[in-house]
Amino acid sequence: MPTLRLALSQVNPSVGDLAGNADLVRSWTRQAADAGAQLVLFPEMMLTGYPVEDLVFRRSFVAASRAAVERLAADLAADGLGELPVVVGYLDADGPPQVSGDAEPGRGARNAAALLHRGVVAARYFKHHLPNYGVFDEDRYFVSGDALTVVRIGGVDVALTICEDLWQAGGPFAAARRAGVGLVVNINGSPYELNKDDIRLPLVRRRAAEAGAAIAYVNMTGGQDELVFEGDSMIVSADGELLTRAPQFVEHLLVHDVELPAAATGPTTETLADGMRIVHSTLDGIPPAPSGPAATGGLIEPVADEAEVWQALVLGLRDYVNKNRFPSVVLGLSGGIDSAVVAALAVDALGPDRVVGVSLPSQHSSEHSREDAADLAKRTGLDYRVEPIQPMVDGFLANLSLSGVAVENLQARVRGVILMALSNQEGHLVLTTGNKSELAVGYSTLYGDSVGGFNPVKDVWKTLIWRLAKWRNRDAARRGETAPIPENSIGKPPSAELSPGQLDSDSLPDYDVLDPILIGYVDGDLGRDGLVESGHDPAIVDKVLRLVDTAEYKRRQSAPGTKISMKAFGRDRRLPITNRWREHG
Amino acid sequence: MPTLRLALSQVNPSVGDLAGNADLVRSWTRQAADAGAQLVLFPEMMLTGYPVEDLVFRRSFVAASRAAVERLAADLAADGLGELPVVVGYLDADGPPQVSGDAEPGRGARNAAALLHRGVVAARYFKHHLPNYGVFDEDRYFVSGDALTVVRIGGVDVALTICEDLWQAGGPFAAARRAGVGLVVNINGSPYELNKDDIRLPLVRRRAAEAGAAIAYVNMTGGQDELVFEGDSMIVSADGELLTRAPQFVEHLLVHDVELPAAATGPTTETLADGMRIVHSTLDGIPPAPSGPAATGGLIEPVADEAEVWQALVLGLRDYVNKNRFPSVVLGLSGGIDSAVVAALAVDALGPDRVVGVSLPSQHSSEHSREDAADLAKRTGLDYRVEPIQPMVDGFLANLSLSGVAVENLQARVRGVILMALSNQEGHLVLTTGNKSELAVGYSTLYGDSVGGFNPVKDVWKTLIWRLAKWRNRDAARRGETAPIPENSIGKPPSAELSPGQLDSDSLPDYDVLDPILIGYVDGDLGRDGLVESGHDPAIVDKVLRLVDTAEYKRRQSAPGTKISMKAFGRDRRLPITNRWREHG
Repeated sequence: MPTLRLALSQVNPSVGDLAGNADLVRSWTRQAADAGAQLVLFPEMMLTGYPVEDLVFRRSFVAASRAAVERLAADLAADGLGELPVVVGYLDADGPPQVSGDAEPGRGARNAAALLHRGVVAARYFKHHLPNYGVFDEDRYFVSGDALTVVRIGGVDVALTICEDLWQAGGPFAAARRAGVGLVVNINGSPYELNKDDIRLPLVRRRAAEAGAAIAYVNMTGGQDELVFEGDSMIVSADGELLTRAPQFVEHLLVHDVELPAAATGPTTETLADGMRIVHSTLDGIPPAPSGPAATGGLIEPVADEAEVWQALVLGLRDYVNKNRFPSVVLGLSGGIDSAVVAALAVDALGPDRVVGVSLPSQHSSEHSREDAADLAKRTGLDYRVEPIQPMVDGFLANLSLSGVAVENLQARVRGVILMALSNQEGHLVLTTGNKSELAVGYSTLYGDSVGGFNPVKDVWKTLIWRLAKWRNRDAARRGETAPIPENSIGKPPSAELSPGQLDSDSLPDYDVLDPILIGYVDGDLGRDGLVESGHDPAIVDKVLRLVDTAEYKRRQSAPGTKISMKAFGRDRRLPITNRWREHG
Repeated sequence: MPTLRLALSQVNPSVGDLAGNADLVRSWTRQAADAGAQLVLFPEMMLTGYPVEDLVFRRSFVAASRAAVERLAADLAADGLGELPVVVGYLDADGPPQVSGDAEPGRGARNAAALLHRGVVAARYFKHHLPNYGVFDEDRYFVSGDALTVVRIGGVDVALTICEDLWQAGGPFAAARRAGVGLVVNINGSPYELNKDDIRLPLVRRRAAEAGAAIAYVNMTGGQDELVFEGDSMIVSADGELLTRAPQFVEHLLVHDVELPAAATGPTTETLADGMRIVHSTLDGIPPAPSGPAATGGLIEPVADEAEVWQALVLGLRDYVNKNRFPSVVLGLSGGIDSAVVAALAVDALGPDRVVGVSLPSQHSSEHSREDAADLAKRTGLDYRVEPIQPMVDGFLANLSLSGVAVENLQARVRGVILMALSNQEGHLVLTTGNKSELAVGYSTLYGDSVGGFNPVKDVWKTLIWRLAKWRNRDAARRGETAPIPENSIGKPPSAELSPGQLDSDSLPDYDVLDPILIGYVDGDLGRDGLVESGHDPAIVDKVLRLVDTAEYKRRQSAPGTKISMKAFGRDRRLPITNRWREHG
């Protein structure tokens, strides 16, 4: 059997940066060539970044992507890398871009893969299965491909597929079996969700069985607005063995030799299998795998859930800040657990010199809150400041007749004004720190503590916030480092401290009661009856559902933040604000 | 030829209010019966409201809709209206709702129409063409129907269709021709766009020709979050004559006698035409049209663009406020044109007693601004207050070291805090007043003047704001009423008044230069080259495109507001925030 040395380039492209992304392809292809690779794979929509959303409707953008892939092929050849076949994702469209006035500019756009060789695009493939659920809107953007592309490389027939093609039975993988290929390449922009890696491997194995071929799965890494791409690239043999697997959340070149069956038949040009057209071609002059020891990519051990989520949140925050070119971040430090966790994430993502923490005490702030905020600052080394808010709060109270919740919210809004002023004056991005439980029930001040440009814990339930804090401190201890999060912040009962002696538990059920109901209702789409059947107290269920149903406006106005689940609040969860439907009694 | 007296019920349902919407059907059917109607038509998704978005994924909601349509049929019969056939839109699903744990709860959901007769659902139709562009995501929610429903009513074969079925050639209308029907019913939840009525009539005529049948087009009216439904219900004969047309933006019962061809063949049960299954049935006992004079619905004359937009904005605002049960609204009055137009819209929508206008002068506010705000209040009769902001601004300046844009934004944010405090204290919804041109270029203060729950002019370019103001004053004069908007507010150069002598023109091109570029770039998706080819100054184009490309975060954080175009900012325009693509040089 021939051996192919594959190089899976698990890289971090930026949306819209066609030139920068092409440069990434050139430098990683150079590294792959140095490692003796015979075929180099890059992720879905590598050249444009993913997802590009409504940029698909810009003719100029589509034209630039089409031109960029041709130029990249030429540049690779000019780099002396033309003999090494490279698979790269990009945005294509049927025919030349049309002139202005076209009523449907997105018509005919394709989520495409190009095989670059000897200075040209030697083969193309258009994604067959378009996902249109959760964060995915590909029916809005793309036309499905109707052909499978099979390229003979070094004597092995290799089929090209893209992302969702792997997640649905039938289609390209079934056709690949009929075509008798030895390897299916699957390039991805597959966003992270907690434990998705546990689903992914069995899925790749099922498709390997369906295709009767090995699968090279390459995924991008990096943050893009609310999405984080985790990598987790891998190669699985035709009989389902995991041959090699890359780490999550980092760029990585996974180089591995794979024994693959030689193509059995003579070269053909076009056949039909399972109703799908198969377009065959052959690349000439691919040298055999280099002599010497076989290249092995190794296997990564799975990590604990908390470690995985922490890495995802750090990467999502780092890339949001850096790709949007903010020099630094600022956040309010209350002494509570949410701001402590966000501060620790920010320091892990950016280093302490790029994080400003501001204690914003009011007359209701307890002494221990101020001390816990200062302790956090000392532990993490961030730039720490104190701005008492009472003089400014009093200025409003002297001029307006306010009472009750209006006074509570006023304090949160004065804090928001101060943080935004520091942002304008010094250039920091403001981080907001509301957890998913608070967002769900609307336990926050609109235009107050919700003020900010990015929320790293937007999709993290409160009970998971605590687990993350404890894990991060344990992990520091394991490494002999200072635990970043004060034990006080973890242990004390949560409070907004907007009125005397206020506790979250005055307004909300305990979080270990609240979170399971929220998870059932929000993540699970369970109705009232389903929640009560699951054993929850009907009165508490009614109260919680009433809160969630009426908080939609606040959620719609909340900052973007890293997604770690299928049902984060934001663009992948679309509910009417004006809505009389009530689950609760 | 038989005559059918049709009643098109152009009503205003509320999303999620299954019981209230069913009550609407019962009371309007009573009115239709009193007018002698033989067939009553209600809009798309009448029972659930439209669009219900991700409520489709709630099994409890789908089950409630299915139960509600059966109950409605029984209730109509109990009302003594069982002999009168009623077409009503609702949410259906294939088979019974599944138990919890289903991975794809939306699977098999249908955008459905039911024909109610004699206490039961006598026929059903599932929408064939699912729109998936602009504000529409129906591929996310629904499965396409694959059959045409034809019902013989009073000797006439009537086909049922839904909304988008009308907007695409082929499909149900072509099948309706093969089936030889006399009338195609088309029920709609078709959102308003400026001049869409001018497109709609020719489209209905084309489909009448395609089907060789008369078309009864009924659309809902009312506001739903960012959407406004305009009504514009109509009947067009098989040869394209507009027989009757309802007014826009109001509830209306359009009753009209239509002569229709008698069904030519004997009754059948199922046939095939153009690849589509046709399901036939017959309603028994439909009485002939009442004797006496023929019912005629009349024809509405088209109105000026400004009048149409004004009505759309008034209705969108009124329904957002009332359907969300806010007692009143509050907004800041700067003396400028934007807040003056929003105040006039609010008074038209809610009456002066439900509108609070607050003048929030700073040291940079000119005397004429304060006078113009007071003049507006006097003209409209709204509840007027003055809250000088300087003491509160000074409180922040005394405690923070701020300069430049940080000081400018501080003033806008103090205003936001005051308006939100009044909202919390007194229950008003805060209206924000940024126009589409400002939103496009980011000429606003995040968490400052962008603070608010609803923005009636979010989708109105600045030059259209001026046209609307002039039209509204002229219209008042025509009716012998006081013009609501001070001439000063219309005539003076726009200014944010955040620093001494500041004018919009210091930062932006004149709006008559800016708006055409924005319209080309945002509404038209033209790239830089297309804009320059259209005759715009390349340097100005580059400047404007740079502003638009970098303002995405502010836009994403902006309040919902009424949509009057295909490309309003908001959910129908999806662009990455983190995005390096730059059109400009």
